[in-house]
Amino acid sequence: MTQRLRLNKNADRRLKAGHLWIYSNEVDIQETPLKNFAAGEPALVEASNGRPMGVAYVNPHSLISARLMSRDPAMRLDRSLFVHRFNQALGLRQRLFAEPFYRLIHGEGDLLPGLIIDRFGDVVVVQLNTAGMQALADEIVDALEKVLDPEVIVFRNDTGGRRQEGLEAKVEVVKGTLPDEVLLVENGVRFAIPILDGQKTGWFYDHRANRAWLNGLVAGKRVLDVFSYVGGWGVQAAVNGASEVLCVDASSSALEQVAYNAALNGVSEQVSVSEGDAFEVLAALKAEGEEFDVVILDPPAFIRKRKDIPNGERAYSRLNREAIRLLGRDGLLVSASCSMHLAPERLMEVVRGAVRHQDRHGQVIFQGHQGPDHPVHPAIPETSYLKALGVRIFRD
Amino acid sequence: MTQRLRLNKNADRRLKAGHLWIYSNEVDIQETPLKNFAAGEPALVEASNGRPMGVAYVNPHSLISARLMSRDPAMRLDRSLFVHRFNQALGLRQRLFAEPFYRLIHGEGDLLPGLIIDRFGDVVVVQLNTAGMQALADEIVDALEKVLDPEVIVFRNDTGGRRQEGLEAKVEVVKGTLPDEVLLVENGVRFAIPILDGQKTGWFYDHRANRAWLNGLVAGKRVLDVFSYVGGWGVQAAVNGASEVLCVDASSSALEQVAYNAALNGVSEQVSVSEGDAFEVLAALKAEGEEFDVVILDPPAFIRKRKDIPNGERAYSRLNREAIRLLGRDGLLVSASCSMHLAPERLMEVVRGAVRHQDRHGQVIFQGHQGPDHPVHPAIPETSYLKALGVRIFRD
Repeated sequence: MTQRLRLNKNADRRLKAGHLWIYSNEVDIQETPLKNFAAGEPALVEASNGRPMGVAYVNPHSLISARLMSRDPAMRLDRSLFVHRFNQALGLRQRLFAEPFYRLIHGEGDLLPGLIIDRFGDVVVVQLNTAGMQALADEIVDALEKVLDPEVIVFRNDTGGRRQEGLEAKVEVVKGTLPDEVLLVENGVRFAIPILDGQKTGWFYDHRANRAWLNGLVAGKRVLDVFSYVGGWGVQAAVNGASEVLCVDASSSALEQVAYNAALNGVSEQVSVSEGDAFEVLAALKAEGEEFDVVILDPPAFIRKRKDIPNGERAYSRLNREAIRLLGRDGLLVSASCSMHLAPERLMEVVRGAVRHQDRHGQVIFQGHQGPDHPVHPAIPETSYLKALGVRIFRD
Repeated sequence: MTQRLRLNKNADRRLKAGHLWIYSNEVDIQETPLKNFAAGEPALVEASNGRPMGVAYVNPHSLISARLMSRDPAMRLDRSLFVHRFNQALGLRQRLFAEPFYRLIHGEGDLLPGLIIDRFGDVVVVQLNTAGMQALADEIVDALEKVLDPEVIVFRNDTGGRRQEGLEAKVEVVKGTLPDEVLLVENGVRFAIPILDGQKTGWFYDHRANRAWLNGLVAGKRVLDVFSYVGGWGVQAAVNGASEVLCVDASSSALEQVAYNAALNGVSEQVSVSEGDAFEVLAALKAEGEEFDVVILDPPAFIRKRKDIPNGERAYSRLNREAIRLLGRDGLLVSASCSMHLAPERLMEVVRGAVRHQDRHGQVIFQGHQGPDHPVHPAIPETSYLKALGVRIFRD
C-alpha cells in the first residue's frame, strides 16, 4: 500500500501552480516522516488538510524530497503511465521532426521528472537521474519496448546529479548490441557520435534550431567553433558553405570525431581542428594575427551552482572578450550558455560588456533557446536553461 | 558652433556602458542649461571632467534630454553620417534577406536613436520619433536617395511618441507617388498593405521569424488568428497548408485587407474573418462550441507605461485563458506580446497561470523574439520588446 506524504500548511502552493517538486522543508514530518520512505519509493501526496494532490516518488536523502509524477491520485507508477507519457512525447516529436533523431523525454518538461531519453534512430540512450526513476528502470525499459521497440537501449547513468541522489555511476547496454557507428542527422548534416564515452548522452540536440539559424549565415565565411565537441556547429557550418572552419576543443577524441564527421559529409578540406584549452587557443590565435568572420562560443556550464555565479560570469565575460578580439571589422559572434543560473539578461550583459571592452558596437540579431524537443515547463524555470545570442559586432 | 552639454559627476556611466540616452537629471544644468537648447539641436556631450563623450541631439522638453548619435566628438550630424549608418544597416539586411522587404533602420538598435525606416521594395516608410530626427529630416531623405534611391518615400509621422517630443502628427508622401498597391513578400507569402492609414508603418516585420516557425506546424490544422490586422499570421498559415483559418480583428478595413491578401495568395477558400472585440469574439466562439488546433494571440501592447503593468498583465492573462478554452485536447497556443514592460519571464508566468486555470498541461516549445532586422542594442533593454511563446497545451 502506497504511503502518504503530507505537506505543511500552504506548502501545496507550488504544486497548485503547476510545479512538480516538493522540498524537504515542505513535508509535515510529524505526520509523515521522510525517514519512513526508501529512496525512490512512491507516495500519495496530500495537502495539509488531507486533500490528495497526486502521486510522487520520494527521496529522503535529497533536498528535493519528492517529485510529482501525476496529479491523479489513483495513478500507479507503472509501465502504462510511461507508455502514456512516451506516446504523448512521441506525438510532439513526430509533428516536429521528419526523422527519428531527437530528445524523446526532457524530464520535467515532459512530465517525467528525472528522466532523460535521447533517440538516435534505433538506438535509445536513457539517463535515470533520480532514485525514483532508478527504481522504475524496468518499467521504463518495458514501456520503451512497447512504444518504440528500439534495437538498442543504453543507460548512460553517469551524470553528476545521480551522486546527490545517492546513486552509483554506471554505463550499460541493457538491450541489443551497440553498432560500430551510431549516426544521427541534424539540419540535414550527418554525425557519428560516441555513445558510451561521449559527453552526456553523446550528442546535444538542444542547439538544433540555433545551429539551423547560423547555417543560413555562414556561406563563404571563416568560422571558429570554440568548445566544438564532435563538430555540431562547425561541421554544419562547413556543409552550409563556410570557406574554412577551425574547431577547438580540449579533448583529442572529440576532435578525432570532428575530423571523422567532416569526412562523413565531404567537407574535410574545409574543417581543421586545434586541441587545447579554449582560452589558451584563443590567445594563441590572436598572437598569430588570425581573424574570423564568425566565432561560436558554446562552452560547458561555467555556473553549476548558485554560488558559482560571480566566478562563472567572469569566465563568460573573459571568453566573450577574447572571442570578439578575433573578429574582423564586421563579424558575427554566437555566444551560448547552458548554465541555468545565468539568466538570459545576464548573458546579454556579458555580451554588452565584452563589446564595449573591445570598443566595438554590437547588434543582437538573434536570441535563441533550447529546441522544441527540450520543452520548458512553464511553472519550472529550471527547465529553461539554454541561451544563444547571435551578435553582429562591428567597428563604427 | 555646436553647444556643449555637460554631464553631472558619474552621469557618464550609462554612456560608457554603451547606452545612448541622457536623462534630464544627468545634465549639469548650472554649467550647460538645457533651456539654452532648441528642441532637436545638436550638442557636444562631455563628462563632468570635460572629457568629450560624443555628439548627441537634445530635446529640453523630453525626459530623455539627449540621445547620442556618435561616440566620435568630431562627427557632424549631416547626410554623410546617415549615409554611413544606412550602408551599415543595409549590409546586415542584405546578408539576411534575399528580397528588399525589411526594417532598414531600427532606431537605437541601428545606432540611430528615434529613427524607424521600413522598406517595401521601392517604397520606403520613415518615422521620425524625436525632435532631433525631425530636425534632420532633410539629411535623412538625402541619405536615403543616395543609398537606396527609392521611388517613393513616405513619412508616417503620426506615432504616439512624437507628442511627448512636442511634435505634430503628420503623414505625407515626400518623394514620388504612392502606387495603388504596395506589396511585400514575407516567408514566401505576398501581402498588400495600407501605407497611409494602416497600423504603424503599415506592416509588422518583427514577427517574421516567429511566423516562419509556426508555418512549419500548421498543415491540416484549424487556426484562429486573434488581432489579425491584415493577416500576417493567418494568411501565411493558410498558404502553409492550414485547413481553415479564422482571422479576428476589430477593424473592418484590416479584415477587408485580410480577404484581399488571401485572394492574392490563392487561399480565399481557407480564410474567413470575424469583426469584433477579441474578448467578445473568443467568448462567442466558445459559446458556439468551436474548437481550434492552433490559436495565435498577437495583441497590441496592453502595457504602454510602467504603471499599466498590473492591469496589462491581467488583460494578457484573461486573453490567454480564453484562447486556451478554444483549443482541443492537444493544441498549440502562440502567445505574443510587444509590450516592452512585460518581461519574457512574466509572459511565461501569464501562460503558466492560464494553463493551470484551465486545468491543462503546457510545454513551451518555442521562445521567439523580434526578427534580425530589429536588432537589439545590448546596452538598451528597451530595444528588446517582442516575445512570442509557442506552447503545446494538452489534457493529460
